[in-house]
Formats: sequence, C-alpha cells, structure tokens
Amino acid sequence: MTGLTFTGRATAGLLCTLLALPAFSQPAAAPLSAKDSDPNTLGWMQGFPPPAEKRLRAADGSFFEFPALRYSVAHMREFMPTVAVSRGLGAPVPLGYRLDPLIDKLRFIPWGSSEPMTFADAFDRNYTDGLIVLHRGEVVYERYAGALKEDGQHAAMSVTKSVTGLLAAVLVAEGKLDDTQRVTEYVPELKDSAFGDATVRQLMDMTTGLQYSENYADPNAEVWQYSAAGSPWPKPEGYTGPVGYFEYLTGVQKQGEHGAAFGYKTVNSDALGWVIARVSGQSVAELLSNRIWRRLGMEQGAYYQVDELGTPFAGGGLSAGLRDMARFGELVRNKGRWQGEQLIPAAAIDDIQRGGSKDAFARAGYDKLKGWSYRNMWWMTHNANGAFAARGVHGQTIYIDPAAEMVLVRFASHPVAANGANDPYSLPAYQAVADHLISLKTP
Amino acid sequence: MTGLTFTGRATAGLLCTLLALPAFSQPAAAPLSAKDSDPNTLGWMQGFPPPAEKRLRAADGSFFEFPALRYSVAHMREFMPTVAVSRGLGAPVPLGYRLDPLIDKLRFIPWGSSEPMTFADAFDRNYTDGLIVLHRGEVVYERYAGALKEDGQHAAMSVTKSVTGLLAAVLVAEGKLDDTQRVTEYVPELKDSAFGDATVRQLMDMTTGLQYSENYADPNAEVWQYSAAGSPWPKPEGYTGPVGYFEYLTGVQKQGEHGAAFGYKTVNSDALGWVIARVSGQSVAELLSNRIWRRLGMEQGAYYQVDELGTPFAGGGLSAGLRDMARFGELVRNKGRWQGEQLIPAAAIDDIQRGGSKDAFARAGYDKLKGWSYRNMWWMTHNANGAFAARGVHGQTIYIDPAAEMVLVRFASHPVAANGANDPYSLPAYQAVADHLISLKTP
Repeated sequence: MTGLTFTGRATAGLLCTLLALPAFSQPAAAPLSAKDSDPNTLGWMQGFPPPAEKRLRAADGSFFEFPALRYSVAHMREFMPTVAVSRGLGAPVPLGYRLDPLIDKLRFIPWGSSEPMTFADAFDRNYTDGLIVLHRGEVVYERYAGALKEDGQHAAMSVTKSVTGLLAAVLVAEGKLDDTQRVTEYVPELKDSAFGDATVRQLMDMTTGLQYSENYADPNAEVWQYSAAGSPWPKPEGYTGPVGYFEYLTGVQKQGEHGAAFGYKTVNSDALGWVIARVSGQSVAELLSNRIWRRLGMEQGAYYQVDELGTPFAGGGLSAGLRDMARFGELVRNKGRWQGEQLIPAAAIDDIQRGGSKDAFARAGYDKLKGWSYRNMWWMTHNANGAFAARGVHGQTIYIDPAAEMVLVRFASHPVAANGANDPYSLPAYQAVADHLISLKTP
Repeated sequence: MTGLTFTGRATAGLLCTLLALPAFSQPAAAPLSAKDSDPNTLGWMQGFPPPAEKRLRAADGSFFEFPALRYSVAHMREFMPTVAVSRGLGAPVPLGYRLDPLIDKLRFIPWGSSEPMTFADAFDRNYTDGLIVLHRGEVVYERYAGALKEDGQHAAMSVTKSVTGLLAAVLVAEGKLDDTQRVTEYVPELKDSAFGDATVRQLMDMTTGLQYSENYADPNAEVWQYSAAGSPWPKPEGYTGPVGYFEYLTGVQKQGEHGAAFGYKTVNSDALGWVIARVSGQSVAELLSNRIWRRLGMEQGAYYQVDELGTPFAGGGLSAGLRDMARFGELVRNKGRWQGEQLIPAAAIDDIQRGGSKDAFARAGYDKLKGWSYRNMWWMTHNANGAFAARGVHGQTIYIDPAAEMVLVRFASHPVAANGANDPYSLPAYQAVADHLISLKTP
C-alpha cells in the first residue's frame, strides 16, 4: 500500500476523532480542571462569527485538542459530514424517574489511594459531561455538564465498537452470520489482507494478528494512513493511498497469529462493519436504526461520522443522546426484551455476557484490568456481579451491572485519552453505586 | 478583497449548493425524465463501498450535477458539516388526514400550452420528490418519490431565505429589530461594505444595490469568492480571501442605489442572518429551533449546512422533513397561531402578506411573474387569492393560498436550476388545487 504520510499536530486531532484513539499529545503539565476547562466558560465557537482565538476546525485538528475537545464532543456534526441513525417518527417513550439523592454522597476509595472520594466529586474528576444511572429501568441519577444538554448528542467514540459488536452478535444469533467462517466468505475484497485468513469470531473478539501500529511518534505508523484514508476532507494533491475505511482495510498486513491474543485495534471494528453491511445489506447506521433506534422510543436520532464515500465509522463514529444510550444499555441488560417484546435475540446478549478468553486478554497486558476479557467488542469484568461495559477513550462508557439491575452511561471528555487515567476514579465509583442499589433490594 | 479564483466544474456543484443558486451547467440536451433519473434506480452511493462510478462528492461538485443531485438533495448532511435545528424531545403532534383522491385528477393548462395536464402528471414533470397539501390544517394530499421518504429530510435551498426573512420579521414585529435602521447599527463590521448605508428593510426586501455577479461564465464573478469563503472544506494553500460567509459580506461593494429595484442576491439573506444573530444572540439555526421547531410538534429535527466557522447558511442551507415544512407553512397561514397559542406575532405575517413594492419587483425583469412583489424574503403573487410563497431553485416551494385555506409544500430536484423551468407546470397546478378546495367549501 502506498500513501502519503501525514505527520504533526495538524492532522492528529482529526485522526484521534476519526479513529477513536488516544490523542497524540498528552498534557505535559497538569491539565485544566473540569471547572476551568468548561467549554461554556471558554467560549469555543461562540460569537457571530467566533473570534479567531475561539475558532476550532476539524481539518487542522484543533477541535480535538484539550480543552477544546470538551466543546467538540457535543458538536461533532458541525465539524464533519455525518449520516443519520433515524429514530423514526413516533412519540418518544419517556423513562420513569425515581431519583436517588444518596448516590452523589456515596463514597469509594479510588485505586491507588487511601482517601475516600464521593460520587459527586468523581463527576468532575473524570471530566464528566453527562451521567445517567438506571435501576430496574428507572432513572435514579442524571446530570449534565460541559457542552452536553439533555437534548444534545455526544461522541461515544469507542463505545461505538460495542454497538457494532452487538449488531454482529445479533446476526450470529439469528443464523445470518456464521462466526466460524472466514471473513473473506463475506468480504472477498479482504482476501489478500491480514483479515483474509481470520475468522469472523476472531474479528469480533479482536484476536486477529495485525501489523498495525498506533504509535504516533512513528511517522510510518499505519494509523496515519488509516486517518488519511478515512478523512472526509478532499485528499491532498498527489494522494495515491486508499480512499475510505474499507479500501484501507484491504491493505492491512498480518503480524503474528490470529486467535492467540487480544489486540485492541480499531480496524477490526471497521472490518466487522463491512461484514455486517454485506450480510444485512445495510450499513451499521441503517441496521442500528432499523433494529434498535426505531424500536426503543428514542428521544433523538443518533448519527455516525462518515468517510468521503459515506461509510459510517463503525470503530468510533457514533454520537447520541445520554438518555438514548441508557435505553440502549437497558435493552442489553434485559437481554433484548423491551416493553414485553423480544427485539433482538437473548442469545446475542448471553454470548456477550459469557465473555471471551481471559488468556487472550491477559496477553494484551492491561495490568489494571486483571481477569477481564473482551467478547463481541464488549469489555467483560468477570467480577462478582457479572458487570460488562462499552468503553470510549475519553471516559465514555455504558456500564451494565446485572446483579445490581443497573445501567450506567457516562459521556466524558477527559484530557487524557486513555481509560487508565479515569478508571481509578470510575470503576470503584460504579461499584459503589451497584452496592448501594443492591442494598435497596432487601430493605 | 483578495482571494483565489475558483473556476471550472470542480467547484461549481458545491458552489450551487453553498449558494442555493442555479447550477452553472444546464443540460444541453433533454435531460433524463423523472423516472429515468430516479436515484433509487441509478444507485448513487449504494454498495459497500459504492463502486467508483456511483460515488458522489461534495468537494468536486459531482454530488450536485443532475441526475446525481436527485440523490444528494435528500442526503446533504452526508456530504458536509451541518448544525442541528432541534425539535426538542417531546412527542410529535400528528397531522390530521383527509386525503382527497380527486387532487391527482385535477386538470390545468400549463403556461404557454393548450394541452391540459393532470396534477399527477405534473408531479413527475416537475421532478417532484415530495408534495403535501394541507387544507384547513389537514393533509389532503401527500406523496413521496426519488430519494425522499417521510422520515427523510430534503434540501430546501432558497426556501431557507423565507425562513430567514420570517425570523427577521418576527424580531421587527416584537420591536427587537428596527427595520428603518441602517444595517451597520446591528453589524458594525459591515460599515465599509455595500450594506453599510443600506437599511435593514432594504436587506429584508432585497432592494440593495450590490456589485455581485452570479455569472458563472465570468471567472471573476463575485459568486466564486463567496463559494470559496463559505466552503466547509479546508482552504487551499495560499488562500488569502475571506473565511466564512460573514467575512465575505464585509467586502461586498455597492453598485447603483439601494431601494430602487428588487435584486435577488443570496448575500442579502446571509447579511440578514448576521443581523438576526446580533439582535437575538442566536444563530438562525438556534432561533428557528427555539421559536418554531421546538414549538410545533415537529416530527424531525431540521438542519443547516455550515461554513468552516460553524455559521449556518441563512441563504440556502436548510434541510427538513416534508410534513414539518407543512407545519411551518400552516403556522404562517394561521398568522402565527398554533393550537390556540400565538407563537409568533400576527403582525410579522401581515407584513409579509402586504407584499413589497411592485415597482421595485418589476425592475428585476421577471417577465413571467408580472405584478408580483418580494417582502421579507417571501414571493407575493398578489393574485385574487392573496397567495404567497417561498421558492427554491430546483422547484422547492411553500405555497400558501389564504383564500383556499391551503398550504402546499413541494420538494423537488428539477434538472434546470431556475424556477422558470417548472413554474409553467407548477403555479397553474397549485391554482387548480386551490380552486378545487374552494369549491369544497360551499357544497
């Protein structure tokens, strides 16, 4: 594969968005606090027209540098072309409310600390833009901050992967997709790529062996070519590389063996999106709309960013409303049942909850996520409650705790683009809420 | 003002969209019929990924050449950044239905013809993508074709101008905007431009005298610089011209006198959008949402295409659903009352319906629109029924006939980007429906 090599800050911000990956530039000094980085205070893109120092652009990456990204996560469609995930035209189905003021007061011990912290304190500590908790399907906690409002939409980033994985798991459970088959059975164009001799299952669990580097310090890292291919902007003069996510995938080369280890690489999700499109005849955006978004009484449409061929970014391009993501999570928690109707097969959710290979996961070296696994693009904690999650790079999550009958959705815009930075203040906080909700069960 | 001069086919398609103006290239031979140009048959952007010959792009203008534009008019957000016009989160308010099968059979004589044509025949003759007729607020006719579905959104193009004009008229009626003041009272940045000594009223009625050519054959025509300024794509290397719609406006030069003649120039609408933003503290997208879209029980959000500074294109950037546009038209027909509540001042609508200067209009030389006028960016027919309209360049319209208690909304994608091509098969057809509905009144 040939292609221009893009380097430098100019494209890195766009890249991170396009790929739902860590931003290249971690703040060297302590970043601004949540309060000091509040996009409403900083005034990005405000004014008619916004003054020069408040302007953000996708093409030069400025829109996704902290603290500007705190604005942009809630305004993705204003920076790039997008495709709608229609909610249909019916009336939204309101969620029931049973707000629990105790949740903000819950205390937990952050990892690596001995000082307790309250759930309310963790909200800002994690640069949270929106957090909702459902207990038995009712809202017990809901709060917005930063650029997100209840009628706004927020970038889900890699939470998108779990949506893609769920759609594939549904097709498997319905017998439309055979996860033991090779990927090329469904997408012949991938024959000469690393995906050529991988199974659909290896794709779904990200145990493919791929030569694919996300090392931003290396100007030859494959991630740069992926960014260039997937960019919605006109290609620069002389560009001869792949156009669009799909064409890029045909050139991904193999490294190591498939099936041996978990390797978290976004290209797997896009390859799976391609498989889904070929099997269902619908893009992931269309399938998500038809199977889920039109069926759950969603309040808002959702949307995906697209490449210049209109392909939705299955690895990280979804934006949606907070309550709608909670509805989605509740559908998963209820094993596909919604208001008395089985919308998607329970077997698809069961397969997520069984989890993947812990051995394969351990080989990926996440030292803080001991004993976890990854299945159908969901993160399985294998904790006592059987919690599992979708996780985005700036702290976005759908965290489902079956034992606590809890769905927690968080949108966030953490300055550090890696969950290692917020997990210590997040996962034990979620557990505290779960413990609390369980304690309510038997008064 | 300096700026690169863009020429040729490459940018013209994008230009036409950006400016809601006639495409530069009219089909030389007879264009494909509505049936033969059906985008579902032609398969634009279909496939995973779409094959090379079915790909459309905004950046090279291919997406807005006929027949491809028949696809693109219903997919604008997939080609460029857009900003939402939120409908809020409440339940849509369904329209009542009283479908009248006689309407398709109504006959009329097209202008310049002696052969009668049926309303149904005119649907395809005008490359209609969607047409709805409300009589006393109830749906009596509704039909979709081409790329538009009932849950889709269609480019309104210059119908957007009338939305902008209405918002301004509302601000005038509420005493927030003084239309006798000079534009510079509200937008000091326009001091040295042609708008500097124009009144807000002259802007609202497009009687400004502007040096602004939309002659595509002239590579120095101002329209090319407007296109470059308003493009959402990264500016080419070495570009030194204005960035965004607003900055472009500051350099528009005067030609002739203000107030003398109607001159249909899109820049007036964007200058008015700037005035509206400064007066209300909201962009036209925000104001349209807060004053109207959130209040009418709309089924779908709408959206505007934006320039690279996020400025909504007040001169032609709105996309919306067909039924929602009908709700908007019904609000206007009812002089701002909606379900018993006065949402916008009746005085704003009265001022539209009084019409503008017929003399000023006559000087613009529309030989087929004798006796018409233009007021608050609406076209006033001054016919016996007092009909008035919003009009878009590919046949889009909101046509309001007060005497017939009728609102007709049409989305279309006519190959000829000028209403002169479809008016002969449209305006007498609308009159036929009005006559029919009036005949029902006194059975």
